[in-house]
Amino acid sequence: MVHDQKVAGYIHDNQGRFVKDIVRLASQPSVSARKEGIAECAELVRSMIEEIGGKTRVLSLPGAAPLVYGELRSSRSSKTVLFYNHYDVQPEVPLELWKSPPFKPEVRDGRLYGRGVSDDKGELVARLKLIESYVKVNGEPPCNVKFCFEGEEEVGSPFLEQYVSSEPDLFRSDAVIWEYGKIGSDGTPVVGLGVKGMIYLELTVRSLSQDAHSMYAAALPSAVWRLVRLLSLIKDPHERILIPGWYDRVQDLSEDELKLLGEQPSEAEELLATYGSGSFVAGMPAAQAKKALVARPTANIAGVWAGCAGPGSKTVLPAEAHCKMDFRLVPNQDPEELYAKLVAYLKANGYGDVEISRETSEPAARTSYKSALAQAAIRGAKEVFQREPAVEISSAGTGPLYVFTRRYGVGGLDIGISPVDSALHSPNENIRLDLLEKGMLWLGRTVENFLEE
Amino acid sequence: MVHDQKVAGYIHDNQGRFVKDIVRLASQPSVSARKEGIAECAELVRSMIEEIGGKTRVLSLPGAAPLVYGELRSSRSSKTVLFYNHYDVQPEVPLELWKSPPFKPEVRDGRLYGRGVSDDKGELVARLKLIESYVKVNGEPPCNVKFCFEGEEEVGSPFLEQYVSSEPDLFRSDAVIWEYGKIGSDGTPVVGLGVKGMIYLELTVRSLSQDAHSMYAAALPSAVWRLVRLLSLIKDPHERILIPGWYDRVQDLSEDELKLLGEQPSEAEELLATYGSGSFVAGMPAAQAKKALVARPTANIAGVWAGCAGPGSKTVLPAEAHCKMDFRLVPNQDPEELYAKLVAYLKANGYGDVEISRETSEPAARTSYKSALAQAAIRGAKEVFQREPAVEISSAGTGPLYVFTRRYGVGGLDIGISPVDSALHSPNENIRLDLLEKGMLWLGRTVENFLEE
Repeated sequence: MVHDQKVAGYIHDNQGRFVKDIVRLASQPSVSARKEGIAECAELVRSMIEEIGGKTRVLSLPGAAPLVYGELRSSRSSKTVLFYNHYDVQPEVPLELWKSPPFKPEVRDGRLYGRGVSDDKGELVARLKLIESYVKVNGEPPCNVKFCFEGEEEVGSPFLEQYVSSEPDLFRSDAVIWEYGKIGSDGTPVVGLGVKGMIYLELTVRSLSQDAHSMYAAALPSAVWRLVRLLSLIKDPHERILIPGWYDRVQDLSEDELKLLGEQPSEAEELLATYGSGSFVAGMPAAQAKKALVARPTANIAGVWAGCAGPGSKTVLPAEAHCKMDFRLVPNQDPEELYAKLVAYLKANGYGDVEISRETSEPAARTSYKSALAQAAIRGAKEVFQREPAVEISSAGTGPLYVFTRRYGVGGLDIGISPVDSALHSPNENIRLDLLEKGMLWLGRTVENFLEE
Repeated sequence: MVHDQKVAGYIHDNQGRFVKDIVRLASQPSVSARKEGIAECAELVRSMIEEIGGKTRVLSLPGAAPLVYGELRSSRSSKTVLFYNHYDVQPEVPLELWKSPPFKPEVRDGRLYGRGVSDDKGELVARLKLIESYVKVNGEPPCNVKFCFEGEEEVGSPFLEQYVSSEPDLFRSDAVIWEYGKIGSDGTPVVGLGVKGMIYLELTVRSLSQDAHSMYAAALPSAVWRLVRLLSLIKDPHERILIPGWYDRVQDLSEDELKLLGEQPSEAEELLATYGSGSFVAGMPAAQAKKALVARPTANIAGVWAGCAGPGSKTVLPAEAHCKMDFRLVPNQDPEELYAKLVAYLKANGYGDVEISRETSEPAARTSYKSALAQAAIRGAKEVFQREPAVEISSAGTGPLYVFTRRYGVGGLDIGISPVDSALHSPNENIRLDLLEKGMLWLGRTVENFLEE
């Protein structure tokens, strides 16, 4: 399917080896949230770029995970494509729900299971091995290739912008292939044209200087009840965020985008099945859920904890209560402005003393589906999968795509090899082995189509 | 101060040894919530009763902690006084807040610090050693004495009623001296005439079959937001429990009780200082807080947990959310009836699928302050402390006092040796060494006064 049939043959013949490379990379724990195995994984990724003939640099900044940069030049085109991936993974907890150890990847029933085999080590290896295939067959890639593999995506890429602005020429490219791509259960590939933004923060609510016996609850204030009331102010039961001005800059989808959205299959129904839910949040109809995934800001509670969380029945009045929240943003929403609105709102409601620790703050990014890059991926999908791809105007997820697309004025998109039910961020994360080859061919065809424009 | 000055002298001369006995007992961990050290501690307590000449029996029931029973007979009175205490303790978490190891009691600045030195091992030893003093000086106690030392008070005494009803004659007495007694910072002893009841339960709210990436929060329901909304239905910001019928059987304090309450010093202001709170819950005035501690039902959240509770910024949409709650009850409220009302209320509000695990269910108990027993303690306090005692119509806390007072139709009260700022259930639990002797003398005088009635 890649124009050069020899490259396609190489990709086909080496599938077993490629899977072993994913296993090799996913066997190295690299949990950025715990700063665990990051240096080791960066070194492994660097050596894997060198193995395919790339030149590498490992960039570092104080307090940051190393950023692994790789480059292969080509005489065939003056254009440059940058592949962005990350070598860190989400924490593997809760461990007891895994059917096989998260860092000992295992094949079962045509799927490879392990933390990161999809997000994002499987995707990363697929791209490396695609370029390897060109190099092995033709001696060089079809255009200049840059790899930007960071180690802190799962904690919000706190240093990516600083890395890129410290060496602005290094990361310049004509197109960005972003970290991840989905393929539906029915085999429909998904072209992702953008990501939401995000504010991630932790709130600490205090009511006492120390935990008290819960009998004193008749007289002393509870940090947990304060937190419950605070959270009730953030969002109403209909999923509307109550912070004044939160939606001021939100633009509805254009007529074109709404039409496109209407033509697309929805991931929403699959989500209900995968996650065993009988209905969408706030009882919204499927069409609304579909649109919400693309275009609605969210306020999620990623974690909450206070008092006695273990077994047994401790009678305690908690002095402190904690929660982690992620707010997903859509284009035009400004994280700085919204954060200020949140702080002001809490203050106005008597929560001015609540401690807020902000960990991520990034705007959304979207590439037009009429762009050359998007059209190259759409055409590539038709050629490889023999069907119309789904086009996702925006992912429901987040990433610092804006760091590249805004700075260099180029398009960026998500295409890849992961099944929609890969359980990313969850126990038993997995990829379908039968999708790896097709996904790689699609990546290759997309690059080639883009170079022809 | 005990009528028999020789006994008072013995108590005075042996203070150092008594403290060593508290240290000995508190050095044996016995965390009932984790079923840790219970058998060992029961054996230690049994041997400590034998050391003072008591006969012992260790009762057991399937799945229950051993109940240690002890008895000393007297030729001086046909009356029997039963001392109820518990040898188990609260969990010591959070460990990092302890200034010395919780199970290695340490004296600092006139206080003894360690888990259980107040609640309830210090109190237990004070009573044993009081009886030892009578036995050493007079060859026998002033009346028949029974000890009932249980090992599961801190997890709600799930088997106490079963133990007592299995041997109803064993625990018969004319008066019950309950587990614990407080002495204010200004040296005012507190006579406690009752306890609140309690329902303790754990709620598990589910929304998905597995955790999801938080980007799906735009479409999928969150267990944490469900829990937040559920909790908002339980209690309003003014501390009123919203479950229909919750207050139906609550009787306000009588005129007499209100007068007594008005004359008493309030623990409330001290609580603000001890726990560093600027105001009472819901902004109530001090007089209202004082009354609430005695007579108001509460709904406390003892613990809450869901999703990512550790360090880092995991972006997860939690499938499950958990909380532990304790509801304190006042006389006439029936735990079974209220539990049914709670279940019905949750069901009526769309939470019929929430899993409820009930761990404790016990009614309140109160003894009249006009009773012979109460008057004996009040008189004893005046004799020993040379001042009017505070009289607490009810503790803010809970205990299965009803098991004895209701069955045998006798009075029961709380008097003891613990400072009001003993930090019980919290890190750095402690007792004041200077209060131990006075507290023991008061216990002795109370028994003697009761025998004279």
